[in-house]
Amino acid sequence: MSTTSTTVTRQLARFVAASRPGDIGEPILHEGRRALLNWIGSPVGACHHPIAEAVRQAFDPFCGSREAALLGRHERMDVIHAGVVNCVASNIYDYDDTHLPSVVHPTGPVAAALLALCGRERMDGRLFLHALVLGIEVQCRLGNALKVAPASADDAWYMSGLTGGIGVAVAAGRVLGLDEQQMVWAIGHAVTRAAGTRETHGTHAKNLVPAWTVEEGLRAVYLARAGVTTSDAPLEGPRGMGTLYARHAHWPALVDGLGETWALRANAYKPFPSGIVTHGAITAALEVAQSHRLDPDAIEQVELDVPPICLALCGRRAPRTAVEGTFSVYHWVAIALRDRAIGIRHFSDACVNDPSLIALRDRVVARADDRLATDAARIVVRCAGGRVIEHRVDHALGSVERPLSDAQLDAKLHDLADPVLGAARTSALADAIRSLHALPDAGEVVHLATPPH
Amino acid sequence: MSTTSTTVTRQLARFVAASRPGDIGEPILHEGRRALLNWIGSPVGACHHPIAEAVRQAFDPFCGSREAALLGRHERMDVIHAGVVNCVASNIYDYDDTHLPSVVHPTGPVAAALLALCGRERMDGRLFLHALVLGIEVQCRLGNALKVAPASADDAWYMSGLTGGIGVAVAAGRVLGLDEQQMVWAIGHAVTRAAGTRETHGTHAKNLVPAWTVEEGLRAVYLARAGVTTSDAPLEGPRGMGTLYARHAHWPALVDGLGETWALRANAYKPFPSGIVTHGAITAALEVAQSHRLDPDAIEQVELDVPPICLALCGRRAPRTAVEGTFSVYHWVAIALRDRAIGIRHFSDACVNDPSLIALRDRVVARADDRLATDAARIVVRCAGGRVIEHRVDHALGSVERPLSDAQLDAKLHDLADPVLGAARTSALADAIRSLHALPDAGEVVHLATPPH
Repeated sequence: MSTTSTTVTRQLARFVAASRPGDIGEPILHEGRRALLNWIGSPVGACHHPIAEAVRQAFDPFCGSREAALLGRHERMDVIHAGVVNCVASNIYDYDDTHLPSVVHPTGPVAAALLALCGRERMDGRLFLHALVLGIEVQCRLGNALKVAPASADDAWYMSGLTGGIGVAVAAGRVLGLDEQQMVWAIGHAVTRAAGTRETHGTHAKNLVPAWTVEEGLRAVYLARAGVTTSDAPLEGPRGMGTLYARHAHWPALVDGLGETWALRANAYKPFPSGIVTHGAITAALEVAQSHRLDPDAIEQVELDVPPICLALCGRRAPRTAVEGTFSVYHWVAIALRDRAIGIRHFSDACVNDPSLIALRDRVVARADDRLATDAARIVVRCAGGRVIEHRVDHALGSVERPLSDAQLDAKLHDLADPVLGAARTSALADAIRSLHALPDAGEVVHLATPPH
Repeated sequence: MSTTSTTVTRQLARFVAASRPGDIGEPILHEGRRALLNWIGSPVGACHHPIAEAVRQAFDPFCGSREAALLGRHERMDVIHAGVVNCVASNIYDYDDTHLPSVVHPTGPVAAALLALCGRERMDGRLFLHALVLGIEVQCRLGNALKVAPASADDAWYMSGLTGGIGVAVAAGRVLGLDEQQMVWAIGHAVTRAAGTRETHGTHAKNLVPAWTVEEGLRAVYLARAGVTTSDAPLEGPRGMGTLYARHAHWPALVDGLGETWALRANAYKPFPSGIVTHGAITAALEVAQSHRLDPDAIEQVELDVPPICLALCGRRAPRTAVEGTFSVYHWVAIALRDRAIGIRHFSDACVNDPSLIALRDRVVARADDRLATDAARIVVRCAGGRVIEHRVDHALGSVERPLSDAQLDAKLHDLADPVLGAARTSALADAIRSLHALPDAGEVVHLATPPH
């Protein structure tokens, strides 16, 4: 088959099936390790959260062979259930990564699936990292292909629910050694179940949408390996993914330059456990608070100029729960001004309902300015006695232009995981991820991400 | 909350949660029993089919507590896996039911889910039948609400994949006794995973699309019972099902007259294991063959006039497999003319590749006539010696206007199930379904739908 007559799905499947760990350069592998280091604190930190616990209990009666670990816990579940529960937990704090051009959160489904799969299929760290990078990259590219228009508040599809299953399918399919045709089918089975509405935002189900894709992707690869067929053109076919989920999918964004250019370079790690569109305003507030050491009680009014999408997605004035709080720019700006630092302790119902914080939050006003980039913001803080501080941020902390350093990622992991694993084991976990490519057994990461017996 | 301010999802949830077996009249209950009798032969008959077997084997490593029977077999799986595998099997022969206005096949997901659930949740036949009727009715109504335009060949969504999970959620939710709020959430969790492309048609995955909804619906009810929340308006919300899956959903078709008028009256049972749009042509061919006792070798040419959708969906000239054969009106018209009766023996790779049948099939020509209703057809048979027979069918056998009689449904069940269960056990199964409302334990149906030990 000539290249020109090769379908989109087949091109993708061929690339993944033929890809070898040595094909990927060190800067991209380093980004893969950073993605895992950034992500893994979330499922460990949230492992006992009531949402994760409710999901675990609801699934437990249907659990099969308990081969796979629940991160942060002593319990185990079968590979599929463990992957789903770990991915749910990882999403709760809204603290994972975001491929900014497509608003896909790529690492969660792939990392959760691969770590669960370690309980069943032995793989060394080099293969794990290779598969992880492929799964992240394919999701970022697929997001670019489906998301031709810029993200807007009325987008109804929850992008990670559309891309996650295909990311898991290519990553797990690579680990299982699927051939090109099986990879086509695995992608096809995942496409068949791509779904997820942003109507779930602000509810527990928001955490389930990316997690379902773990189930979908893992089932897809085992079906494909068993010879269960599906369309050869699930992405580009006339009734395929492009027709169903995008007004006009741009397939070159998925398949052009595979292995040469890397969409995951635009994948960003969150410095704050809140909606990504709040990060410009939070950065501005933090920088003002840290530079000027303000007394929060002296703050009379805070005026924010933010991009319109910030208010559209995260404009909740009066959140009542931690989950609702992630959608309130007012809440997080107040925290930044009062506490001058942000950590996972701020993601709690207690914090959202703290009267002193509510009082400050209620003195924050915001207006949309459509000239501001998604990660930009301006802040004016008016204090008692007439003092006025103005500050402008062009790029939020954690953006592609201002990425978290390796040390900042390390601190984020400790903030999340120390209470569960202890500082020493968390350090060992970080070390294992930094040397992932050299681990004889990737299951070592799983082992260190669970508490000692 | 007043009726006028009640949202669509809540109206539906309230109706289902409050509905009691005594609320539903005997004619509708009778239709529920007919739907089950029509359906259950398919999963029993196809229980050893290679597609069902491949799916079973792919899932088996992840199987939990083996509480639920695989219909027609001795093996058991956990409730979710058994429900999915049984639904896959039931779809293979393309012989189930079709809600004609929406092209939803409603019984498969609901019956497969409830029969599997019998392995875990004890329910009497009255509750089973009640839940089954609710699950079928809600799918037919939802199909009507989403499918405002008539079915056309370029519809990319596979309707049963969109409606099935909600049908399973209300049925299983009713069995588990979910309250109104839990039922809202169960519907919402199912909506979150509604998916399925008709790009799968002609492949194994076509059988998986309705089957995934068993998993989605069952997971939805257990999550809802555990208090896992989702949107209160998953159907009608701005980013909900109507926005995502329909150009303009017509919600009154879902909620108006619930419990008073019944959309399932337009649910039809297939007399032939082929695409529903071929049934007019097959009926015409059968009636000619039976009336005139034609010698197939003497047939020189067969001319068909069929509705355009018949050729668009089922216009394959040269099918190579049984599955592809379901999409070939030429194949089935040739069978009708040669054998003067149609049974499950005709759904096989061997039949599709039978040289004598291919020779006759190749003498069939068809043209689209957009004045013909979906279930109408005209046939002209030209025989050696100049004999010409013309016949017109306004409504296919198995249409709402010409429904299969109870005796015909009985014969269809025996055709499918006798080779697996034996005639005596199949008769006992039919008797149990006919007296479903009086069974102390609905599990008796499951028991009789598996072979004796």
